Amino acid sequence: MSETLADRTALTEQETHLNESSGTPDPSAAPGSRRPGGRTAKVRRAVLDATQEALATGGFPTLNMDQIAAAAGVGKTTVYRRWGSPVGLVTDLLHDMAEQSRPAADTGSLAGDLRANAVLVRETLTDPRMGAVFRAVIAAAACDEECARALSGFYRTRLTEWAPVAERALARGELPAGTDPVELLRAVSAPLYYRFSVTHEELGAADAERAVTAALAAAAAGAYTA
Amino acid sequence: MSETLADRTALTEQETHLNESSGTPDPSAAPGSRRPGGRTAKVRRAVLDATQEALATGGFPTLNMDQIAAAAGVGKTTVYRRWGSPVGLVTDLLHDMAEQSRPAADTGSLAGDLRANAVLVRETLTDPRMGAVFRAVIAAAACDEECARALSGFYRTRLTEWAPVAERALARGELPAGTDPVELLRAVSAPLYYRFSVTHEELGAADAERAVTAALAAAAAGAYTA
Repeated sequence: MSETLADRTALTEQETHLNESSGTPDPSAAPGSRRPGGRTAKVRRAVLDATQEALATGGFPTLNMDQIAAAAGVGKTTVYRRWGSPVGLVTDLLHDMAEQSRPAADTGSLAGDLRANAVLVRETLTDPRMGAVFRAVIAAAACDEECARALSGFYRTRLTEWAPVAERALARGELPAGTDPVELLRAVSAPLYYRFSVTHEELGAADAERAVTAALAAAAAGAYTA
Repeated sequence: MSETLADRTALTEQETHLNESSGTPDPSAAPGSRRPGGRTAKVRRAVLDATQEALATGGFPTLNMDQIAAAAGVGKTTVYRRWGSPVGLVTDLLHDMAEQSRPAADTGSLAGDLRANAVLVRETLTDPRMGAVFRAVIAAAACDEECARALSGFYRTRLTEWAPVAERALARGELPAGTDPVELLRAVSAPLYYRFSVTHEELGAADAERAVTAALAAAAAGAYTA
């Protein structure tokens, strides 16, 4: 697919509004000038909430454009034109989840910050609704390359957002010079996702704590220096 | 589902043979007395090879019982009665993959053995065919609880099979007393699977080496003691 989601969104913005029972034209409809609280943003919010709910309850294989439109209270034409396909819905949901992901902790110590991250990952994956959403997007990414790129982008954003945790620790002299911040963050998440999505083992508080202890010890030994 | 695969296999063994154009009765048909080279084993091999091929090329969503029967050169009734569903095929394939997985290395050092394991995991996941098979079963496990249990069993078998690597290292005094062998093995695999199935990042030789270095450092620091 050469047409990106952004292209589709920009091209069909006007049409979207023709298909909604909108009163006065919404200035947020002009590409590049959409306000967070505008009509376009509200339509997107409703559609992405419905998409997340559908993924949580039925998974990617059952994701249905007509049902999403009905659940969101949005015209079918809008959903088809703006998101194109179930893959388009998942891609935009992942962009949204990346934008809304919790900002990095700043507890004053590397151990404290990594622990906050591990707890956040564990709480997200063991939350009934968000765990189901993550299972669904990980499965979708295994079946579809566009979903895989979107999921990869989600983690790139999230890991980059938390990198300052390691950068501050480097500045404080808590890590060997040359430690790769993103590699250290990956090391905290990897054992948790491995249990969650590969071996399907329980993911307890002790697992989150062990991920932090192991990552700190490996980092101290220089395992994550570039 | 209360009926297990073993139940189905035992119950339908005789029927399987009625549906095959078999000449003389095969003694391997009696449950509990199947020989590796018997007719039942040959049918299973053909069906599981076809299942693996179908997973590698189309993934779990396209797994079709009729096509598997045709590809394996086995009667449809046999495939339906013995495996029941695409989930039954995946479950039996995972049992088979666990039985056939490479035995643990014994290089004489913990670092050597863990490196052999990391290289094996990386080679498997980056192999075009086996990588596609693993993507497919990980996706299937995300959508289906029976597949999840089967995948969990596959890794339990594999991790247990490699545990002696850590047990021998404990005996040689290469690890802190009380180190959990399986936890150490999980630590080597987790960063590789995380890149492969969660973040969809490249999985290079340096990543396998880093997984070993990090696991060894964390183990030495006591991160995997129970």
